[in-house]
Amino acid sequence: MGGAKFQVKYEENRDCMKTINEQSERKSLRDVRVGENVRIFDFVNAYECEIGENSRVGAFVEIQRGVRVGKNCKISSHAFICEGVTIEDGVFVGHGVMFTNDKHPRAINDDGSQRKEGDWKLIPTLVKKHASIGSNATILPGITIGEGALVGAGAVVTKDVPDGATVLGNPARALR
Amino acid sequence: MGGAKFQVKYEENRDCMKTINEQSERKSLRDVRVGENVRIFDFVNAYECEIGENSRVGAFVEIQRGVRVGKNCKISSHAFICEGVTIEDGVFVGHGVMFTNDKHPRAINDDGSQRKEGDWKLIPTLVKKHASIGSNATILPGITIGEGALVGAGAVVTKDVPDGATVLGNPARALR
Amino acid sequence: MGGAKFQVKYEENRDCMKTINEQSERKSLRDVRVGENVRIFDFVNAYECEIGENSRVGAFVEIQRGVRVGKNCKISSHAFICEGVTIEDGVFVGHGVMFTNDKHPRAINDDGSQRKEGDWKLIPTLVKKHASIGSNATILPGITIGEGALVGAGAVVTKDVPDGATVLGNPARALR
Repeated sequence: MGGAKFQVKYEENRDCMKTINEQSERKSLRDVRVGENVRIFDFVNAYECEIGENSRVGAFVEIQRGVRVGKNCKISSHAFICEGVTIEDGVFVGHGVMFTNDKHPRAINDDGSQRKEGDWKLIPTLVKKHASIGSNATILPGITIGEGALVGAGAVVTKDVPDGATVLGNPARALR
Repeated sequence: MGGAKFQVKYEENRDCMKTINEQSERKSLRDVRVGENVRIFDFVNAYECEIGENSRVGAFVEIQRGVRVGKNCKISSHAFICEGVTIEDGVFVGHGVMFTNDKHPRAINDDGSQRKEGDWKLIPTLVKKHASIGSNATILPGITIGEGALVGAGAVVTKDVPDGATVLGNPARALR
Repeated sequence: MGGAKFQVKYEENRDCMKTINEQSERKSLRDVRVGENVRIFDFVNAYECEIGENSRVGAFVEIQRGVRVGKNCKISSHAFICEGVTIEDGVFVGHGVMFTNDKHPRAINDDGSQRKEGDWKLIPTLVKKHASIGSNATILPGITIGEGALVGAGAVVTKDVPDGATVLGNPARALR
């Protein structure tokens, strides 16, 4: 990732989290709650989310409101983590991974009016601990990715992935 | 998307467009023609293009010269919209969607010289109104995506999508 | 790409390379060794790598340490080029292309400790001269992409691509 550009310091309480706001040249962090030793690289857009201790967030990542990232995770560059996603401890999210939260994304409503919050239903996604999601994978809404599961690079995950399973392809299927 | 960082104000004429140039810390906008109430988020690179009223452009998006985006569109984070693409009103472009405009992309010509404008043929793409393109989809050059059509997340679209159709997969096929 | 924002000037020696460091508003370049006439656009994160003369690097690109990019290459926006990748002269890397270097990416080791350098094996990748990699393609670790080969947009490349071959799909297969 190329050198930590941001590191939270804790003087007193190892386990507490702390809310940071940084509107600097190369970062847009608004109400990001972080654990100890979290590293967030340049060109990151994150807001109203939580990132557990020792986790790392690469360049060109967006993390939306309400997202919870556990401890010891790696969120690689170019990933997009949308509202409704929960990521447990020790998860690897590869480069360019896209999560989704809307089964029928549309810019406008049937009556032609612009879609706003409340006009669509957010479908949550859960990534269980120690799972690994390969680069450029796409995760459809409402998916649970099981503990220690492996999603292959470039896979399009359209149904739940059992604990420990490996899935590949578009649509993603379990490796025999 | 996390809070509008840029919003065009119109005092007098609701329907006019206005050309903006902003070379700020977190934005590179050059000769971007925008309608009323267009919102462009941080870390966007756009130039010599047009974005219709009420449309939103997410973080880490690049929009090239000559692109026209209609009204009430949502261009999600990490999308790339190249020269030759026209997007009608009310279109949703998901996160990480990549358009293309060259059937035979090469860095160099057959004689080993570096490729320049005029050495290749731009193939245009049209996305008709109210269509929706899922995250991480890839759109090959010369495609027309029909009115109200839905392109599934992660799909690779290699031929035209009829009005109202849903296509999925790599290569993308119509949902039966 | 929208106008060169950075251009190296050479006064005396056409063939020499030069190491640049730029920590500016919209660029993070650390120990990037560049040839003559290299253009690097905004919002790029690159470090400890080498980019040959006349090559261009688009917006939202990350290039990691040890990467070598040849002369006359085009690295398109949103691409990620990881440690272990070597790109020869005259190569086109499309938008959103993701390279990888770890067959079993994990955030943590089996004992639950956070993964560090030395805890995993880097698998190198080679892209031979004049090859072209379409947008949103994913390149698995350890791949050699042959001279003049073409990787289709959205392809997931899981095995070597012979010289001059065209491959498409997920997993990528040779065009008949």
